[in-house]
Amino acid sequence: MNIAIIGSGNIATFFATKFHQGGHQIIQVISPTAENAKALASQFDSTYSTRIKELKDDADLCLLAVKDDLLQGILKEVDFKQKFLIHTAGSVTLKDLSSSSPNLGCIWCMYSINKNHLPERKNIPLIINASNETTLEIIRTLSACISTSVHSLSDDQKLRAHLAAVFANNFSNHMFTIGQDILQEEQLSFELLIPLIENTVEKLTYTSPDKLQTGPAVRNDESTIAKHLSLLKDHDDFKKIYTLLTDSIQRKYS
Amino acid sequence: MNIAIIGSGNIATFFATKFHQGGHQIIQVISPTAENAKALASQFDSTYSTRIKELKDDADLCLLAVKDDLLQGILKEVDFKQKFLIHTAGSVTLKDLSSSSPNLGCIWCMYSINKNHLPERKNIPLIINASNETTLEIIRTLSACISTSVHSLSDDQKLRAHLAAVFANNFSNHMFTIGQDILQEEQLSFELLIPLIENTVEKLTYTSPDKLQTGPAVRNDESTIAKHLSLLKDHDDFKKIYTLLTDSIQRKYS
Repeated sequence: MNIAIIGSGNIATFFATKFHQGGHQIIQVISPTAENAKALASQFDSTYSTRIKELKDDADLCLLAVKDDLLQGILKEVDFKQKFLIHTAGSVTLKDLSSSSPNLGCIWCMYSINKNHLPERKNIPLIINASNETTLEIIRTLSACISTSVHSLSDDQKLRAHLAAVFANNFSNHMFTIGQDILQEEQLSFELLIPLIENTVEKLTYTSPDKLQTGPAVRNDESTIAKHLSLLKDHDDFKKIYTLLTDSIQRKYS
Repeated sequence: MNIAIIGSGNIATFFATKFHQGGHQIIQVISPTAENAKALASQFDSTYSTRIKELKDDADLCLLAVKDDLLQGILKEVDFKQKFLIHTAGSVTLKDLSSSSPNLGCIWCMYSINKNHLPERKNIPLIINASNETTLEIIRTLSACISTSVHSLSDDQKLRAHLAAVFANNFSNHMFTIGQDILQEEQLSFELLIPLIENTVEKLTYTSPDKLQTGPAVRNDESTIAKHLSLLKDHDDFKKIYTLLTDSIQRKYS
């Protein structure tokens, strides 16, 4: 297929590279920063532009790999109705963009991509959906260039997967950060916690997390909980989080 | 040294095995369940007992590897004043046990041990402390049989390290569990989230977690946050956690 890439960031670079390796033509890269657009285009011998209005007529498919909150603005500038239109945003549904093209779809990559160190991993989960069967088939073919782990989900399933990722990745990372903050107050290194965290995550590949829950909350160890809360007396923020999560764990396992 | 092991669980098995490999004599194993005591003792050709009062006089050092809340009870049953006494509890300080022996110390293993699959890893962090220099030196020697990562901490530092581990490991695991619960409602597998989590944890070895924070909260993406909260309208518990953690992230990075 003749593919135009809108965007030049992490996902744009990753997907364009994989589509190209899969035998597709990247015929144009469009990105507001000329330097980035040119750098990405040069990898595929394609043209580039900084203006969305210069989108080529002979692009069969547009990949919109831009920040979630820029999507709607771009869709107003150009008529995509004659093209297959694929966006990459986890939090945006087909319903949100339904007026932009009859052949609309999404490939959402449940992974954090860095364009300077593209992942080697072959099983990065891709969540796909589309407004019709033809578009879904095209998305399946393109997705197969990227990963062996491709999942066709409804709009609602996708939003819930996105929400689950916020808990399991963004919020867990915030827990690591609070751990780091608490250690730093005593000039202790976060490295102390890494083996423990790695060990729990290793176990996730063969045990579900609800079977791995440890700690004073699940043991109902009230004396340790009281000690911890007293250490947090000057950290209202952490204390509220500790209390709420302890309650939540105790309710789940009681 | 002649060592008596009180306990026959995960830590008792791990430490006793390592001390024995390091050339120390395990002369006795004491545990309320005869079968467990016998099984562990048989690995070292040592005697065993189910009664703490039968603790041998010729034990130079006692390792108390029992559940945190059983410690005080055991310490009342026998006079440990002529022995080096080492406990293994993360949430118990030297101050808590100061009357039990003048030569008191702790080796706290910041890792989750399973006695049926003892870890191969050589750098499991051990937090040590002791009531005097002689005891600390003995603990250093014993710890070197177990790990290359040994850290001498004060009571207060140790309690804070324990608190940090609750956030970074127990609470992050609860975040994984909530992610799993949300996916299960749509019959989706937790496996979808594993590559993302693994990737974040891989990065922790060279980037600190505060530099890895992603997601709608740190991006101030209010429209995605509103969508997520609306998906959680029937989950009061998860909704409260989502709101509190989103606020905490936004305050930290604002």
